[in-house]
Amino acid sequence: MTGKDGGAPLEPIGNSPVVILVRPQMAENIGTTARAMANGGLFHLRLVAPRDGWPQDRAWRTASGADRILEAIEVFDTVDDAVADLHHVYATCPRPRHIVKQVLTARGGAAELRAATRRGLRVGLLFGPERTGLDNEDMARADGLIRYPLNPGFMSLNLAQAVMVMAYEWWLTEDETPSRELMTNETHVATKGELENFMRHLLAELDECGFLRNEQKKPGMVRNLRHFFTRGEVTEQELRTLHGVVTELSHGRKIRQG
Amino acid sequence: MTGKDGGAPLEPIGNSPVVILVRPQMAENIGTTARAMANGGLFHLRLVAPRDGWPQDRAWRTASGADRILEAIEVFDTVDDAVADLHHVYATCPRPRHIVKQVLTARGGAAELRAATRRGLRVGLLFGPERTGLDNEDMARADGLIRYPLNPGFMSLNLAQAVMVMAYEWWLTEDETPSRELMTNETHVATKGELENFMRHLLAELDECGFLRNEQKKPGMVRNLRHFFTRGEVTEQELRTLHGVVTELSHGRKIRQG
Repeated sequence: MTGKDGGAPLEPIGNSPVVILVRPQMAENIGTTARAMANGGLFHLRLVAPRDGWPQDRAWRTASGADRILEAIEVFDTVDDAVADLHHVYATCPRPRHIVKQVLTARGGAAELRAATRRGLRVGLLFGPERTGLDNEDMARADGLIRYPLNPGFMSLNLAQAVMVMAYEWWLTEDETPSRELMTNETHVATKGELENFMRHLLAELDECGFLRNEQKKPGMVRNLRHFFTRGEVTEQELRTLHGVVTELSHGRKIRQG
Repeated sequence: MTGKDGGAPLEPIGNSPVVILVRPQMAENIGTTARAMANGGLFHLRLVAPRDGWPQDRAWRTASGADRILEAIEVFDTVDDAVADLHHVYATCPRPRHIVKQVLTARGGAAELRAATRRGLRVGLLFGPERTGLDNEDMARADGLIRYPLNPGFMSLNLAQAVMVMAYEWWLTEDETPSRELMTNETHVATKGELENFMRHLLAELDECGFLRNEQKKPGMVRNLRHFFTRGEVTEQELRTLHGVVTELSHGRKIRQG
């Protein structure tokens, strides 16, 4: 995709899902939708019969720089036209009633979208108008409905928020970030030898100042300190700081002791 | 939580995580944050030094009815004050640099929040100001940083969108919705016997009208039809409709044939 300004695309786009806003009412929401799409690596946006026509300046003001998505927007008169070149279409829908349809979670839907694009199929996601959502005719054109698991006691979901959840789940289908990881930046996690070196320093000073004078309690106290210092990973840099802390605290005492 | 209006809470709140907006700039974003929180079952909102003070009418206008969250907001002067009664605090942060810290995904963070609350601990989530994000002093007070896996080529994430992602992941930690399920509403999935009954009807009519007249090709054609009709689940209601379709199509032919 190259926008009207002729610039390079935000990202390689490939065969990513097409987001289709059906009869959107507020141009601001088209802009915030584009922003949410860019966050999650979605770049193809289509509009079906936007209430106020297209383009609308207000969309650019809320897109936070996702301009190329707006500039490449395609506008259609009907849902049938907007999905004609796609192979699979999913419709987002908070409360489907009286219909027989596959219903997927956002995560389940994202997985199917990814699987289909890997097969070379073109896929799309339908989002309904702000107030009413998709109507029964729109949903009858979809391969499945996507219903987010969210608080049933408060279902008022902003259009761009709805797009954000799908964009986020789409991005996660290929993300391999570990769920928890110590970021060490310039330093490194300390080895057990480095930690033990610090523990010897600490215990020697604690012995000298009398903190461990109760020989009966001493082994337990030492073990508790070890438990504390092994609870999380410690870095080399932090051990240097801790060595300094122990040295300086001891130094003050030694000076006072003359 | 009961709002100033004395009404019932939106949902049982229990020990859900506290969302803490640090130095938020726009009252509109406080309102949209409350809306996103309600979507994901988060109800405790705290503000640290909101730029324009609190309360602000503009927040109510963007909260779409999540008023009780706004009415129960607690305001603090410092992050230290806002987290003093909490046991674990996570800080959301798009691009942490030069610090040594546990970094979690949104999903990993939500899992830890849930695990901590199950232990009876009170937990909180820090979100920074719109333009700058959390500063280094704020992050130094957190047990871990939460960084969303999202498109690194477009990192401009709206504050309420950031809250939405965490609220959504929080809700999912206790959600057991199957990722794909046929919603049948008033009807039921047909048994194999009911499907076979329809296939017999269809094949009998196809035999009669001559569609299967090529005896060599007939077994393959019948198998292909079976493959099609077993590709997705079929409901009893749909089989009744299909029976009707076959009967009516055949009826027209029979009348013409006199």
